Amino acid sequence: MEIEILRLSHRLPRDERISTHVALVARAFGASSITYTGQHDSGLEDSVKRICDRWGGKAPAGHFSITYEKSAIPFIKRKKKEGFAIIHTTMYGLPVQEKLSELKQKKLLIVVGSEHVPGQVYQLADLNIAVTSQPHSEVAGLALFLHEFFQGRELARKFPKAKLKVIPQERGKKVLEK
Amino acid sequence: MEIEILRLSHRLPRDERISTHVALVARAFGASSITYTGQHDSGLEDSVKRICDRWGGKAPAGHFSITYEKSAIPFIKRKKKEGFAIIHTTMYGLPVQEKLSELKQKKLLIVVGSEHVPGQVYQLADLNIAVTSQPHSEVAGLALFLHEFFQGRELARKFPKAKLKVIPQERGKKVLEK
Repeated sequence: MEIEILRLSHRLPRDERISTHVALVARAFGASSITYTGQHDSGLEDSVKRICDRWGGKAPAGHFSITYEKSAIPFIKRKKKEGFAIIHTTMYGLPVQEKLSELKQKKLLIVVGSEHVPGQVYQLADLNIAVTSQPHSEVAGLALFLHEFFQGRELARKFPKAKLKVIPQERGKKVLEK
Repeated sequence: MEIEILRLSHRLPRDERISTHVALVARAFGASSITYTGQHDSGLEDSVKRICDRWGGKAPAGHFSITYEKSAIPFIKRKKKEGFAIIHTTMYGLPVQEKLSELKQKKLLIVVGSEHVPGQVYQLADLNIAVTSQPHSEVAGLALFLHEFFQGRELARKFPKAKLKVIPQERGKKVLEK
């Protein structure tokens, strides 16, 4: 199972935090990498790498990486050739609760749009999939898709090489430091 | 069933888009209202009202509203007295997949934190609940909680009085306008 994320058209400063949330959700919910297009943003990359370094799942352990790519379309075409199913999350697509069971592929590239997604992405996608047909959030859409895809198993996922680890508490905070 | 959301410590411009996403997720995933504290932000309120107006579920049909509140703690105490269970979503809490089945209450106030959550919130909460113990996103945390709480039924929820309605498509976009 290999899940990669492609975040489209990152813009500064507008998307600074939303793209960070997309990347952290990708990591926390079991994807292995995120690639982003739009404006190059070393701040975004540093934030994500810092989280991986402290909370585990860091490359080269093979668990999460962030990479910039200039153009989305050639990247999507390349992934298609490598055998990835292209899943585009969009409120205009087919309902996730009806289509997910049809997904048999083991390698997915999940495309997370921003304001304007080129028509070509809809055409290249093997599946245009909607988490509700309401306007809400690409962060929530990605989380829900991964949660449904992994059938909840991602919630108990372990993160190797972590320096910090939360010990769940009824009240307050407990964090172990290595 | 009544689900209200409390978003803590909204800060401008930093939280502008994240709080909007929190509010839109609240609406799309079946909450009836959001209250926020921190900086008053008429831009946030207008965005949410505009979405409700166009996409349905607008008050006074009783479906979604946004309100500002000066202080979180008195508001939480008031809701507790009104019979709401206080659910605080935090990565330091107990795992959602283990605790959700214990929730028998029909009225919930879900508290969504931002950077620094006062210790009193952890104490006042009936349940401090974690969607993974990893750092990710309050937007994703809220969506996942509501999705688990409604057991996926929220994905097919109808929005009354909508002017715009998406007709799900395999490719491209189809929106009906009333």
